[in-house]
Amino acid sequence: MNVVVNGQFVAAEDALVSAFDRGFLLGDGLFETIRVLHGSPFGWDQHLARLCEGARFLKISLPFTPDALHRVAVRLVAANQVPDGLLRITLTRGPGPRGYSPQGAVHPTTILALHPAPPTPTAANTARSLITSSVRIPTGDPLARFKTCNKLPQILARMEADAAGADDALLANTDGYLVEASGSNLFWIHHGIVHTPPLAAGILPGVTRAILLELLPNLSLPVRETSPTREQLLRADGVFLSSSALGVAAARSLDDQPFAPSALVEKISRSYVALLEARTRQPG
Amino acid sequence: MNVVVNGQFVAAEDALVSAFDRGFLLGDGLFETIRVLHGSPFGWDQHLARLCEGARFLKISLPFTPDALHRVAVRLVAANQVPDGLLRITLTRGPGPRGYSPQGAVHPTTILALHPAPPTPTAANTARSLITSSVRIPTGDPLARFKTCNKLPQILARMEADAAGADDALLANTDGYLVEASGSNLFWIHHGIVHTPPLAAGILPGVTRAILLELLPNLSLPVRETSPTREQLLRADGVFLSSSALGVAAARSLDDQPFAPSALVEKISRSYVALLEARTRQPG
Repeated sequence: MNVVVNGQFVAAEDALVSAFDRGFLLGDGLFETIRVLHGSPFGWDQHLARLCEGARFLKISLPFTPDALHRVAVRLVAANQVPDGLLRITLTRGPGPRGYSPQGAVHPTTILALHPAPPTPTAANTARSLITSSVRIPTGDPLARFKTCNKLPQILARMEADAAGADDALLANTDGYLVEASGSNLFWIHHGIVHTPPLAAGILPGVTRAILLELLPNLSLPVRETSPTREQLLRADGVFLSSSALGVAAARSLDDQPFAPSALVEKISRSYVALLEARTRQPG
Repeated sequence: MNVVVNGQFVAAEDALVSAFDRGFLLGDGLFETIRVLHGSPFGWDQHLARLCEGARFLKISLPFTPDALHRVAVRLVAANQVPDGLLRITLTRGPGPRGYSPQGAVHPTTILALHPAPPTPTAANTARSLITSSVRIPTGDPLARFKTCNKLPQILARMEADAAGADDALLANTDGYLVEASGSNLFWIHHGIVHTPPLAAGILPGVTRAILLELLPNLSLPVRETSPTREQLLRADGVFLSSSALGVAAARSLDDQPFAPSALVEKISRSYVALLEARTRQPG
């Protein structure tokens, strides 16, 4: 499998970065995970917009234009013959002098790597058993708006899920509401209305979440941005997660208490897959 | 300059890690920065205790014993002829499959690197101008107890200081108290008592902070663990920062408001340097 390191195509085992890269030393970087189908990265513009906004916020100079990076991504997909997979783009501040100040770190590092395809997202085959994590997300964290390389809270939450034999963990914010899973956004249905926590809850602005917020009204499903308590979630008529890797995945249970199975979640999942198929067969 | 990568001595430009190392991808790792003087790492046992405790918390299997690592560190210092400098130890979970779960990542990465000596710490030559950062530290964050590779909040705070032309930034916790600087612990003196925020404020348990908490009573200085408001700090009889890199560094000002110069801070700084000298001349 080939990997792109600062524009160079290399074998995965030769994909190396300096031990003085601030991404490695301090988590000083950003990433995107993009679903690739029919050789085409889905939601490219939204992913790149978030990456570029994060780079602007962290004052990392972009070493590429989004268009040039798209050409490299498509070449990587073709070279590896992986038309159906996940593309991870990593952008770090690159090597620099010791210490937290980014002064003197002027050569960012860009890595593009492909990963095996996840199961074609359907609500059924990806249904997740969840636990409530002990990890809290700070409400109002300015870094929550970006997909940064500081993922220890999410790793801890996922370790708690692993230890409990669950698929994933829901995290509460410091206000006490359940607001997202370790690597996906949270939705739930109540009385025919689809709810999802607002960005102000401290959650990652997921690309799949944004696509769903556009899609759901077309399915005649009203949407409201509210954060649930654990009790509200357990009384929901259906719960699901969204991410580029999962698509729309039904949640089966929370802390061993089963959620109601939901035909609506099935319908939303099928509609999302249809959109993914349509947009990647005719990219642009 | 030589660097140790997983036990191998290599030139700095050959100190490379996999682009699939979870340290690089997710900040999934820990580090320590240790003052080396007279060829001897100062506070080794305390630094290694924090590193090992963090590894246990993150379930990273230690690929070394502290004693074996000490021998490697001393060899690195000798090989580079840097008896006076800073040693950074980085321990990450190593490469693993895509995603937040650490399952399947079983080969941690260990890097030892030396950096130039900071100025011999005296209160005067390291006196810091400070600003109040907009970045907040979440009170009760379980990760705050360890020196993790998730340093974007500290990097952001330091960027704010750089932009203001200041040396460093003080961060408030979510309770609104000023509790630490981007890379050092905070102390202030009021009516002859030395105050420093308690670990429960969400701060890093600094090794230099712990050494000072033992040293200060020997100087007949009472210590109290309390967190200051910005107003309390501005009324202090002396303010200083502590870290392995800085030693004891007087704070000159906060948001351009000068702190009172303090003979006591000078005395504490001199006593710390004397301890550093004594312990590194006779290691063990």
